[in-house]
Amino acid sequence: MAIIVCGHKNPDCDSITAAIAVADLLSKRGMEAVAAAQGPCTPDAKFVLDKFGLAAPAIETDATGKDIALVDTSDLSQTLDNLDKGKVLFVVDHHKLGDVTTPNPLEMWVWPVGCTGTIIKAMYEFYGIEIPKGIAGALLCAILNDTVLFKSPTCTDADKKAVEGLAKIAGVADFKALGMEMLKIKGSVDGIPAKDLMYRDFKDFNMGGKKVGIGQVEVLDLTLLDKVKPALLEEVKSSKADGRHTVMLLLTDIMKEGSEILVVSEDASLVEKAFNGKVANNSMWVDGCMSRKKQVVPPMEKAFA
Amino acid sequence: MAIIVCGHKNPDCDSITAAIAVADLLSKRGMEAVAAAQGPCTPDAKFVLDKFGLAAPAIETDATGKDIALVDTSDLSQTLDNLDKGKVLFVVDHHKLGDVTTPNPLEMWVWPVGCTGTIIKAMYEFYGIEIPKGIAGALLCAILNDTVLFKSPTCTDADKKAVEGLAKIAGVADFKALGMEMLKIKGSVDGIPAKDLMYRDFKDFNMGGKKVGIGQVEVLDLTLLDKVKPALLEEVKSSKADGRHTVMLLLTDIMKEGSEILVVSEDASLVEKAFNGKVANNSMWVDGCMSRKKQVVPPMEKAFA
Repeated sequence: MAIIVCGHKNPDCDSITAAIAVADLLSKRGMEAVAAAQGPCTPDAKFVLDKFGLAAPAIETDATGKDIALVDTSDLSQTLDNLDKGKVLFVVDHHKLGDVTTPNPLEMWVWPVGCTGTIIKAMYEFYGIEIPKGIAGALLCAILNDTVLFKSPTCTDADKKAVEGLAKIAGVADFKALGMEMLKIKGSVDGIPAKDLMYRDFKDFNMGGKKVGIGQVEVLDLTLLDKVKPALLEEVKSSKADGRHTVMLLLTDIMKEGSEILVVSEDASLVEKAFNGKVANNSMWVDGCMSRKKQVVPPMEKAFA
Repeated sequence: MAIIVCGHKNPDCDSITAAIAVADLLSKRGMEAVAAAQGPCTPDAKFVLDKFGLAAPAIETDATGKDIALVDTSDLSQTLDNLDKGKVLFVVDHHKLGDVTTPNPLEMWVWPVGCTGTIIKAMYEFYGIEIPKGIAGALLCAILNDTVLFKSPTCTDADKKAVEGLAKIAGVADFKALGMEMLKIKGSVDGIPAKDLMYRDFKDFNMGGKKVGIGQVEVLDLTLLDKVKPALLEEVKSSKADGRHTVMLLLTDIMKEGSEILVVSEDASLVEKAFNGKVANNSMWVDGCMSRKKQVVPPMEKAFA
């Protein structure tokens, strides 16, 4: 039975490329493994796969009866449904340690770095397996994507070093230009319905027993969102009405390096406490805030504790 | 603030030596770190530390306000008290993935091998740090201890290979003789009160919402336990009376490669189901059963699910 290698719900570039790379690595270690994703590729992930000649992973949503390798998450709310009815054999992740548990021993590679791709490069080296050119390019893009061209505070020296090595293997001379091209596609909002923008990169968290949804839209310049912003706030409100205590949508300005956060909450003072600021008209600017994982989830969890 | 490196409750040889080695490794990676243990050394762990000139870790029982590196467990019931009031930065473990979660990204090295020591040797190599001679000897003994001289089904090729490498670094010519000497001390029951034997290597598990305690006593020959067995059964009964659904004590015969399991349970049929056998007079022989982790916990969890 092939091991299903799969990332989180609403798959992003890192989840998609990590699934492809870990499936390749496990196969070359002698196991049968296939890449999967819980949904279709985002436009930036599709650009990356097309650029490096890789096929999109098969869609999988249920773990029942399957052997599983988790990438880019260890949160039950993010993994395949019925994870307890499958068998988790591997976890490769760069987030906080979530609530996945196993009855069996397993192999885990979890590092506090900016992208799963950085860990996967180290895994290839550890096992003495050559990284295929196309996969090197895909991992390179995933790191540039997750670290927002090294600008995110989640970016570490290990991420930068991995990008240098991967660019050589992939034969990419100007990785910054490639990264900008990808982020332009990622940040493109023309003709995309507000609902799609809202849920393109959206995760639910359990904070002190409350359901908290946090989405993020990254654009090169926040003015690109001016027209769609009222519709986005309506989406945040209806997401809140859908059984959540708090919903936040980060509108991240990559060049200005900060985020406007749209907030609808049963108790907005918790959000104000988390960021030491004021919410006015369901909105709050947080200077320097680029990373949900590092700059939003930890202070929110603290405020809800 | 120094990182507290600490293993599970009722520390065994692996938890003690892993704490010492990981504290050394983190220090050499430029962090401040100290080895700790949740209780005093077992006789076999003390033998190992004396043999290789290492100091026993300081006793710690509470994580409040501390930075923590967990070794040899990721189960909340096994870690320092108030773990949620400390900050877990590292996990090095070879067990199933437990219920520890973190609000922060972290570094985890978890492999399905016989001993944490095997993973730690690979970590030293990965970071290009030389393993000190004494620590090599201690890790060597931990692996021989956890794998019962390679006889346990938990033993992998990686464990055997690590032992070979560590024996060279430690200057141990006959590691089997050293292992036998250690296991004789570990299995010595002369003059040890039944209560101490009962809890020397005892762990509580949450199985389907029920508290299940499982202890293990390993001896070279089961007849060594003949005299103390009635007193051990009384200890199992009083442990059960102490709020547990099921208590099992594995009396493991290293040379015969099997275990007599003493059982007191509100529903012994679950145990019978787990091992496909019969409990008579609170006892059951399970041929080939050497490993709580690999051969007892998984079928028990399945039976309780």
